[in-house]
Amino acid sequence: MRRRGLGNVAGMQQECSGDVAGMYRGRYDAEMSSYDRLSSLDASFLHLESLETPMHVGAVSTFEGESFFDSTGRFQLAAARKLVASRLHLIPRFRKILKSVPLHQGRPIWVDDPRFDIAYHVRLTALPSPGTREQLMTLTARVQSQLLDRSRPLWELWFVEGLEEGRVALIQKTHHALVDGVSGVDVATVLLDFQPEPAFRPPPRWIVEPPPAELRLLADSVWERATEPAEIVRSLRAGLRGPSNALENTTRIARSVSSLFGTDALAPHTSLNALVGRNRLFDGVTISFDDVHRVRQAFGGTINDVILAGVSGGLRDLLEARGEPIDGMTLKAFCPVSVRDDAERMQLGNRVSAMFVPLPVGLPDPVERLEAVRDATFDLKEREQAVGASFLLDLTHYAAPTLLGLGARLAHRQPFFNLVVTNVPGPQVPLYCMGGRMLEAFPVVPLTKNLSIGIAILSYCGNLHIGLFVDRDTFPDLPVLSSALENSFGELLKRAEEQLGEPGR
Amino acid sequence: MRRRGLGNVAGMQQECSGDVAGMYRGRYDAEMSSYDRLSSLDASFLHLESLETPMHVGAVSTFEGESFFDSTGRFQLAAARKLVASRLHLIPRFRKILKSVPLHQGRPIWVDDPRFDIAYHVRLTALPSPGTREQLMTLTARVQSQLLDRSRPLWELWFVEGLEEGRVALIQKTHHALVDGVSGVDVATVLLDFQPEPAFRPPPRWIVEPPPAELRLLADSVWERATEPAEIVRSLRAGLRGPSNALENTTRIARSVSSLFGTDALAPHTSLNALVGRNRLFDGVTISFDDVHRVRQAFGGTINDVILAGVSGGLRDLLEARGEPIDGMTLKAFCPVSVRDDAERMQLGNRVSAMFVPLPVGLPDPVERLEAVRDATFDLKEREQAVGASFLLDLTHYAAPTLLGLGARLAHRQPFFNLVVTNVPGPQVPLYCMGGRMLEAFPVVPLTKNLSIGIAILSYCGNLHIGLFVDRDTFPDLPVLSSALENSFGELLKRAEEQLGEPGR
Repeated sequence: MRRRGLGNVAGMQQECSGDVAGMYRGRYDAEMSSYDRLSSLDASFLHLESLETPMHVGAVSTFEGESFFDSTGRFQLAAARKLVASRLHLIPRFRKILKSVPLHQGRPIWVDDPRFDIAYHVRLTALPSPGTREQLMTLTARVQSQLLDRSRPLWELWFVEGLEEGRVALIQKTHHALVDGVSGVDVATVLLDFQPEPAFRPPPRWIVEPPPAELRLLADSVWERATEPAEIVRSLRAGLRGPSNALENTTRIARSVSSLFGTDALAPHTSLNALVGRNRLFDGVTISFDDVHRVRQAFGGTINDVILAGVSGGLRDLLEARGEPIDGMTLKAFCPVSVRDDAERMQLGNRVSAMFVPLPVGLPDPVERLEAVRDATFDLKEREQAVGASFLLDLTHYAAPTLLGLGARLAHRQPFFNLVVTNVPGPQVPLYCMGGRMLEAFPVVPLTKNLSIGIAILSYCGNLHIGLFVDRDTFPDLPVLSSALENSFGELLKRAEEQLGEPGR
Repeated sequence: MRRRGLGNVAGMQQECSGDVAGMYRGRYDAEMSSYDRLSSLDASFLHLESLETPMHVGAVSTFEGESFFDSTGRFQLAAARKLVASRLHLIPRFRKILKSVPLHQGRPIWVDDPRFDIAYHVRLTALPSPGTREQLMTLTARVQSQLLDRSRPLWELWFVEGLEEGRVALIQKTHHALVDGVSGVDVATVLLDFQPEPAFRPPPRWIVEPPPAELRLLADSVWERATEPAEIVRSLRAGLRGPSNALENTTRIARSVSSLFGTDALAPHTSLNALVGRNRLFDGVTISFDDVHRVRQAFGGTINDVILAGVSGGLRDLLEARGEPIDGMTLKAFCPVSVRDDAERMQLGNRVSAMFVPLPVGLPDPVERLEAVRDATFDLKEREQAVGASFLLDLTHYAAPTLLGLGARLAHRQPFFNLVVTNVPGPQVPLYCMGGRMLEAFPVVPLTKNLSIGIAILSYCGNLHIGLFVDRDTFPDLPVLSSALENSFGELLKRAEEQLGEPGR
């Protein structure tokens, strides 16, 4: 990898940020290896993007609102912008734009945006009265449905006033090419604080670096393509994308990839896999972390197993309500797994692998569903260990973008999975923004062509916050799923209490 | 033309709408000519559209707010949706979506949207406190910057609460392929009322027509293409769009078109013509219609001449503030002219021609500018009459899309005009929505690739409302232009009062 890591963020925030500024400048000296070039996975998120499939991740969170407003009741937007601006040197790509290499000879690189305008990225809007949760979810869905502007740094923060009880919401969008789910949480911890009083310190002066000369860039990229294995693979894939016999080729690749995962690699056909439109719906479900722990205590498995079992129950009820046959059906969930270690925290970019987890929606009993998930993930982990960590890293470079690309391209024909479920561990202590305590935060995972739902889960301060991002056109019955999820976790808890012999708890 | 006109709308609103329903249904019987097919100009607005150049027209208007809210202070969104829904049968395309012809053999046709959802199209949002005019303009720019969803009927209405003094705003977007500026006003008059009490009457039952069978449609389209002159021209143009020598061909066409307009056909190079990005800014300037009449009284010419002279003065100051050389410079404005007669009112679709009007920004004296505009437009009208009305109608079919297409495609190389200025006459009596009186309405005209500003003017109830829609990236100094426009009209009025000998007025 040619990017330089930023090291541990907490440490950096403590000391004077001189080192960061040093790393940030002087990146584009003559030596070729200093470009901040997108990885192939990062770049694949750009290739896959379309109006119907925006490729940003995001979240909506709510805060105690009082401290956001001045004495006249006006939102302190200038102060909020100043706070965000003061931390941008910790996440340099938030001030960078994409520069493509001439004649498409190579992946784009990141260069400084000379017209960077904080007012474009940090916005304020409001909910109509009475400012309900439902209205916030509608606004979130609208904002998240829209593409980010490729000609600007690929992120937006929307503060929202007008919520019930004087609360403030924050809707964030960050392009997947910039940051994956895990480092996304790190970014949030840069913008958020661990104490009510925001630690504002003047940032180092920002010096705009001019982009490299076009010809230099072209020459370097051609050289890289010719010598780097990853680029050779990329050229191969580009060739396969050709219009002549593309479908045949992708199907062939699909077959060989699927053999990696055994014969049951293809996911069953359900209404969850339908070509999505441009508009989304969003909802959030909150589950007590304590309850999940109780279930785990009663029946074993990991926290993740309990979550996936709970999700399975919700999806079962949804498909049943849609009148679809589910007897004996096992959905396949694509679960991104982070393969970054601590040294890589805050180094933006994607280091993910994937597990394909069976969701046993065909089993009517909640405990049986949990046991099935538990056995399956245990089995998967065994297999994973056999493959070894180094292969997983290689998978990141070569297989993961291919898988995602195929998932999107094979569309309604041959999906390998029915939905994405991503589980991001968050801090268990309160976070603050502008002095206001964060109450909840629901993450957003993007949809691709034939996936009508993405489920993203964040644990924060004693709760699991489940963000349900669905296609408006093919998934109009989101409220059915939201209630079904609550019921499903409730059933698991009830059975756990029975098992533990404390039904009166 | 193969579309059926809807006749006079006012008359239709009076009588029971049985006739309309009759026209609306049974449109897709076996006879080929009954398709509601896009005209070539309508279709060109689809071809030209991109993320950077959304092709919708729109407006933002404000209303006295009281009657929009119920006794608990909540916006009556359900009632607003019901009102809009009750009038949709008068504008059937508002419930239709585009259906492309198989294998691209012909322009798309309009078919009923079977999943039409009024809640998608009629939305409610809010401004942050204190709800200033500036905040409304920011919101308008954001909403207007976003593409309409091609898979739905191509319009959106956004009600906005939270304005100062309890007012309500309405932001509307309608795709240019659906409706041009002139019939856009007619649409507004359908949704708006001439009296405070909204005339609600239950609409006729809407029966969704299934789209024509794919094969039938393909066969018909191939037949039409082979036999219709317009389609032959279209095929020719499609051929010219080929990748081989497209630029050379368009340049050649440009030269021959430009010869139609004399040797001065090309517009001067200024900062107004720069490649635009995805984001916009918006502002509105209000000028008293009485003042414009006074100027006309003093110096002659048409109302339109006075408006164009006022706009010239504003643009002069803007370019001067940018430090650009303007001595002796004459900008070229593209002014769409409606060629529809009364029988065609409310027949959606585009029937426009264009005038290229010189804007004499190089002249320092406001009255000299007015005289120059007056002489030029008089000359243009003479020439137009010589060409004859029937040629103008032909121009609509063949030349106008070509001109617009070229204007967008030749981009920064060879623009024929520096900006679009469109002047839409509106009603001089008050309009109402949900019982609230409309106070002002600023129209929005879309930008194309190398046009960083579009000026759209609506006269309403004693005022001229000038909507300034500019590219955020290349036109950050919009407030400079807004003030300059006010000053420019102020100067003209001052000179008129002097001329008329009533300086103390």
